[in-house]
Amino acid sequence: MMPIYLDHSATTPVDPRVIEAMLPYFAEKFGNASSLHRWGQAALAALDQSRRTLAEILNARANEIVFTGCGSESDNLALRGVAFALRARGAPAHIITTPIEHHAILNTATQLEKEFGVEVTRVPVNRSGVVNPDEIARAITPRTILISVMYANNEVGTIEPLREIGKIARAQKIIFHTDAVQAGGYLPLDVDELGVDLMSLGAHKFHGPKGVGALYVRAGTPLVSTQTGGSQERARRAGTENIPYIVGMATALKIAQSEREETNARLRALREKLIEGILERVAQSQLTGDPKNRLPGHASFVIPGAVGDEMVLGLDLAGIAASTGSACTAGSAEPSHVLAAMGYAPDIARGALRLTLGRGNTDADVERAVNAAADVVGKLRRK
Amino acid sequence: MMPIYLDHSATTPVDPRVIEAMLPYFAEKFGNASSLHRWGQAALAALDQSRRTLAEILNARANEIVFTGCGSESDNLALRGVAFALRARGAPAHIITTPIEHHAILNTATQLEKEFGVEVTRVPVNRSGVVNPDEIARAITPRTILISVMYANNEVGTIEPLREIGKIARAQKIIFHTDAVQAGGYLPLDVDELGVDLMSLGAHKFHGPKGVGALYVRAGTPLVSTQTGGSQERARRAGTENIPYIVGMATALKIAQSEREETNARLRALREKLIEGILERVAQSQLTGDPKNRLPGHASFVIPGAVGDEMVLGLDLAGIAASTGSACTAGSAEPSHVLAAMGYAPDIARGALRLTLGRGNTDADVERAVNAAADVVGKLRRK
Repeated sequence: MMPIYLDHSATTPVDPRVIEAMLPYFAEKFGNASSLHRWGQAALAALDQSRRTLAEILNARANEIVFTGCGSESDNLALRGVAFALRARGAPAHIITTPIEHHAILNTATQLEKEFGVEVTRVPVNRSGVVNPDEIARAITPRTILISVMYANNEVGTIEPLREIGKIARAQKIIFHTDAVQAGGYLPLDVDELGVDLMSLGAHKFHGPKGVGALYVRAGTPLVSTQTGGSQERARRAGTENIPYIVGMATALKIAQSEREETNARLRALREKLIEGILERVAQSQLTGDPKNRLPGHASFVIPGAVGDEMVLGLDLAGIAASTGSACTAGSAEPSHVLAAMGYAPDIARGALRLTLGRGNTDADVERAVNAAADVVGKLRRK
Repeated sequence: MMPIYLDHSATTPVDPRVIEAMLPYFAEKFGNASSLHRWGQAALAALDQSRRTLAEILNARANEIVFTGCGSESDNLALRGVAFALRARGAPAHIITTPIEHHAILNTATQLEKEFGVEVTRVPVNRSGVVNPDEIARAITPRTILISVMYANNEVGTIEPLREIGKIARAQKIIFHTDAVQAGGYLPLDVDELGVDLMSLGAHKFHGPKGVGALYVRAGTPLVSTQTGGSQERARRAGTENIPYIVGMATALKIAQSEREETNARLRALREKLIEGILERVAQSQLTGDPKNRLPGHASFVIPGAVGDEMVLGLDLAGIAASTGSACTAGSAEPSHVLAAMGYAPDIARGALRLTLGRGNTDADVERAVNAAADVVGKLRRK
């Protein structure tokens, strides 16, 4: 039987239409976009077109899009860039974030705190993983320079109330960043409507290639470049532009966003079937994250009496690709920081299982996954 | 007539063998290398194999190779990583470099100086662009933490005396970094023989893709990560690994290094013919950089009475891709910082022309380029 991939939050296969769009830029239109000659100008035209595509989707201006090497780099540039631009104001700068962010935010905030004298407040979330905008508002001090809250969580799929936080940030004139890496392919990205000043995207979460991302930077946002060199990306991110991947990212985002409603409806139906199946067939299993306000293809559970990594390995043997919550920390013995912040005890959090659906999945995949999970958990519990 | 690409120092077309090696990793073996399941493990195996390939070529250990998003990122990580690791020693840390480095070094050193209290000494070079190791030695102070000298210069092709500088650095227990981005495809990369502790590479200079690089980090070298998040690359560089490009980089470097002697002999012969042709046909033209100790395919000139950008545009019309010296600053009105450091007056430096040969070029290309250059310069001088 063909193995089934149910780990689309970790990464996705590149869409064939994206590969086709990228291919001419490897060996034919291979120029350096900074070169004055025809090869350079062809590369520059592709770069400009891709930038306009992203800008249009985000309802932004083309010069507010900075292409980066991945979503993590975008997160790093947002936090470091703003902190280094504003930390010299005198008193220590203050950043507000949450404890359920991706490690690209968490660890960057911690490094800024430990090495560069920045203060960080991590506003707690509720049992569903939702942050309360009022608590964000209460955490603001006169030294707050940045609020960073993710759009949707990678481990439990919960969507955060960005619009409400955006209004608070706007009213207090504080820069608002969102890590939209998980949300990029599924949720609306209008930066004005969301009220964000900075937004991170990574192409490989929406059937684009790994190794390219973008950071939306609202005009006027103070930002120190954290990768200096040539004047690419208006001196905000040095390095010869990766034209094939930038073209690929624009193509992938355009496809994902134009097919969004159709895809999401299909994925939501599959997800509900998957959640019902697991809750019914795997005794004591509990859904984690918000039951309704979650990413369309995202199902996450805690399963008492089973260990996450063991379930993942058992499911792999059964031909199902799953994860415990985050590929970035797979194999780590630490229970999830996200589940901990949501109030799950370590022994419960250890039984985390994440199944994330994508475009290619079918009803039959869901059935096989539910059967396999019931079987694997049963065996692990009998051990 | 087919246009001729003579700008291989700016970037190169991806080798068809490299494209072939990369293709399976886009949509088939597309896993996240951190995932525990079979897709993840297939990606991890490709990552490990690529790392071993680079390690073997560099005479290094696999865990001393950090894959990055480009050569500029590698340069940034080297300088920032060491500076942030060692700046807290008390007195301001001190870095020694040269004024002819790539902007990824120059501008990073300047940012460290202006924003982070690091002291920087830029040791001058001679008329050929060669730095004197004795002057490096004389610049060392008790607070010197890092020496960064490029392996070969991008604008004038000059190869620097790394081995001698490496011995000085070793004797004084100072970390030694080299930007080998231009040298990677053409010169030996044995890190022990060169005596370097850190070495930057970028794949697109040797027929690999744009958007992937590597930093060699000798075991024990203090380095603070400048892109934090997941624990990829042993927590030295966060971000989901770009497996297709990493495989592509390893494939490209293996091809370039295994064919190096043959390629270099051929390119050197073409280069000599090109240099002779230009010096003979273009009155008052002068070769810049070291006449012998230079990159095999690299020819660079100053041409009095002509402006670099105008020559490049004229040559482009004639179907020849050339540059003034660095794609990263093309279109800039500033005369080259490299030629300035080599003692060329601004009005002479303004006439810079760089023609860089690659694998695909032929004798006929050189003849056409010489004729076109003579013609274009003649027209510009008559204007």
